Amino acid sequence: MGTETAFTGAAQPPRRRGRPAKAHSLADDTRSSIVTAAAEEFARDGFDATSMRGIARAASVDPALVRHYFSDKADLFAEAIAAPMRPELIVRQALNGPTDQIGANLVRYIVDTLDQPAARARVVRLLHTALGQEFAARMLRQFMVREVLKRIAAELGDDNSEFRASFAATQVVGLVVARYGLEIEPLATASPDEVVARIGPVVQWHLMGNPLP
Amino acid sequence: MGTETAFTGAAQPPRRRGRPAKAHSLADDTRSSIVTAAAEEFARDGFDATSMRGIARAASVDPALVRHYFSDKADLFAEAIAAPMRPELIVRQALNGPTDQIGANLVRYIVDTLDQPAARARVVRLLHTALGQEFAARMLRQFMVREVLKRIAAELGDDNSEFRASFAATQVVGLVVARYGLEIEPLATASPDEVVARIGPVVQWHLMGNPLP
Repeated sequence: MGTETAFTGAAQPPRRRGRPAKAHSLADDTRSSIVTAAAEEFARDGFDATSMRGIARAASVDPALVRHYFSDKADLFAEAIAAPMRPELIVRQALNGPTDQIGANLVRYIVDTLDQPAARARVVRLLHTALGQEFAARMLRQFMVREVLKRIAAELGDDNSEFRASFAATQVVGLVVARYGLEIEPLATASPDEVVARIGPVVQWHLMGNPLP
Repeated sequence: MGTETAFTGAAQPPRRRGRPAKAHSLADDTRSSIVTAAAEEFARDGFDATSMRGIARAASVDPALVRHYFSDKADLFAEAIAAPMRPELIVRQALNGPTDQIGANLVRYIVDTLDQPAARARVVRLLHTALGQEFAARMLRQFMVREVLKRIAAELGDDNSEFRASFAATQVVGLVVARYGLEIEPLATASPDEVVARIGPVVQWHLMGNPLP
């Protein structure tokens, strides 16, 4: 894990530099071309070897413009690879409410997001790639464990947050693979409420690190 | 699920027809060529559309010879696609002992099997394929849920064994993907005992369908 140090800086809000309102469509095009270039760079070189500067070069834009739209590499990565699942949003949603509901909140967020076909297709494709190529596996690990689960686990206790996060990942990734990738019935067509009721407590349990009674 | 009726017959032991001991190596070649042909047929046509007869034709052997080595299509499928994980063996191992240890037994079997590099590589490849191609997903569903988890769930109660099996599948497949596919640490290098202690109770809970306290 020694080389994966790109996430240590606190995320800053994207800088706004007086982008004129009328240029919206052009700005959207620019932003979109940055995301496309980033996806290609990440796919070719992996997360660690890809830089904001290299992405700017590939997109033929000034590096300052990349930083105008994206606060850091993690932000751009999330957009490029797993846009529907923004890590800081997931963490905020999960921690929003009573401590004993964190697992349920997290599962609710995942199900609400991935019940949408476009997001589902994108995440299943990412998982497919991650099971075949190490750099994609590494990106998914960083995203799911370091950016999301470990942060939540750290809120629930000091000890072994990485251990707890990695075990919580088994239930989270298993839900995604079984419901959206393999489409195992009746899980695949179960209501969000049923899924939250059955999977939420398990994610909670893994995150807390409690012994099961 | 209406077309997936190939598993209803009870498995019979392979028939022994006085194969001469000296012909061992030739017999092994024949058996191996049947398995290879089966893997190709399953991969091209999917499980339902593949027949024992078609496999015999592809392997250029008499259909009776296929039935000499393999009791039914499920048996041949297990050998062709997921040889290290034979369903009847997994079910027997899981049910061997006290009822409340079924989840732990199942997880122990999976970890003991997949901690071996060849088996791990084969299963991760199968999962990779299953997330990209529907026929492979269907084969994996049939194998994991119908042949293994639903049978175990049915031993633990009459109601909703398919529902319970499909939720147990989330934790089982998630363990396999996270530990062996994505290699998430420290889960990936945790001892078998640690994995059984943390994942076994969850699988048990999903299989029993109990509310978590």
